[in-house]
Amino acid sequence: MVKLIGDERLDYLLAEDLRIIQSSTVFSFSLDAVLLSRFTYMPIQKGNIIDLCTGNGIIPLILSTRTKGKVIGVEIQERLYDMAVRSIAYNKLEHQLEMIHGDLKEMPKELGFGKFDVVTCNPPYFATPQKDKQNLNEHLAIARHEILCTLEDVIRVSSQLVKQGGKIALVHRPGRLVDIVELMRKYGVEPKRIQFVYPRIGKDANTLLIEGIKGGNSDLKMMAPIFVYNGENEYTNEIRKILYGDKEDGTS
Amino acid sequence: MVKLIGDERLDYLLAEDLRIIQSSTVFSFSLDAVLLSRFTYMPIQKGNIIDLCTGNGIIPLILSTRTKGKVIGVEIQERLYDMAVRSIAYNKLEHQLEMIHGDLKEMPKELGFGKFDVVTCNPPYFATPQKDKQNLNEHLAIARHEILCTLEDVIRVSSQLVKQGGKIALVHRPGRLVDIVELMRKYGVEPKRIQFVYPRIGKDANTLLIEGIKGGNSDLKMMAPIFVYNGENEYTNEIRKILYGDKEDGTS
Repeated sequence: MVKLIGDERLDYLLAEDLRIIQSSTVFSFSLDAVLLSRFTYMPIQKGNIIDLCTGNGIIPLILSTRTKGKVIGVEIQERLYDMAVRSIAYNKLEHQLEMIHGDLKEMPKELGFGKFDVVTCNPPYFATPQKDKQNLNEHLAIARHEILCTLEDVIRVSSQLVKQGGKIALVHRPGRLVDIVELMRKYGVEPKRIQFVYPRIGKDANTLLIEGIKGGNSDLKMMAPIFVYNGENEYTNEIRKILYGDKEDGTS
Repeated sequence: MVKLIGDERLDYLLAEDLRIIQSSTVFSFSLDAVLLSRFTYMPIQKGNIIDLCTGNGIIPLILSTRTKGKVIGVEIQERLYDMAVRSIAYNKLEHQLEMIHGDLKEMPKELGFGKFDVVTCNPPYFATPQKDKQNLNEHLAIARHEILCTLEDVIRVSSQLVKQGGKIALVHRPGRLVDIVELMRKYGVEPKRIQFVYPRIGKDANTLLIEGIKGGNSDLKMMAPIFVYNGENEYTNEIRKILYGDKEDGTS
């Protein structure tokens, strides 16, 4: 049994055979979070992983299928933190996944510096605009705009949390690429792998996946692009596989 | 009539209906130079354009078909400069294209600061290695290794040459992306458009096209990827069009 609050629903993560609590008025995960969970390096047997801005815990849930290591999720909004905690319990993953309700900026002091093998983050994408252009729904506004943390906060804190030689993986808009690589270098993280996601062939990219190594050498790999839709406006096979696993028709 | 020296040959630029003097032991242009000539912004009616590390003048020759502006090419190797001068004469483009035999680092002092609308450059790609790993052919070594100019020289000089609001377009290896965007910002140039070139679908990118604006705002467009070869190991239609124009069979 699971307790659902208000308009919450229990969605399937088909490829992972997990379930997740979502709500379109509070928080639903995006394809970007799923792509980051597949893109990031993951130690298989053990390790300490932390996901900042974890929302309803989508990234820790997916990572639980890629690693036996411990994964911590940090979320500043209590309502979303609570959804994540209930999803973890429903999936019986309390032994592996832990949620912290708090401000990511406090985490190095609370959890220690240089303790993590991997830091992931799907941060708010938009610089904080004038109040009247923000989403009126406060939950959605905090998740989408740099209201409670900036891109620099995310990268500074990630660098503080990760070990030397550990990895930081982010998803963001391509327009922030230059800011991201500049901030990574400022905080001693060398960008090593980048992958762009294009809505379809012939269109500009709309999503950036980037992984850096704390204290790494200068050397960047530009991976094959990902296309989301094919010419018939359907998900490409690559995306279907990511979302639905090997079940080609998308049913469970 | 054209004077050819040693193993030089007179090659066709099919898409542009121009000819160019080349030599495999001295200098032959690469696809990268052609892609940069197509990628860079070009004012159509007038303007001052300068191409650094111009080699045998491939980029100015192609640009002459995209603009009525004046294009200067700068080449430090006299042998290559001489090939470029003869190609320009053969194509009767002396009124539009000018070659300078000299060191790009001297150009701001010689030609003036902030005088150009567009600066293009296909610089040497490789950091200068130990002597025994350099190409033994001095002409090819200088064109490929950062022996006579570094990436920082190229970007600093480009920024000095270009007007406020003017554009700098470079082609390089993806591995240098982070260095390039960091150096551009250091010299007041904001990266605005990036396009990656992939040898084929599913492979990592091997070429980076990047354009920045002197004094521009932070905002980056990640353009649709270019693929060079299709599944049958032939040029894709996109590349055939760039190289051969609309003549689908590649004959003139």
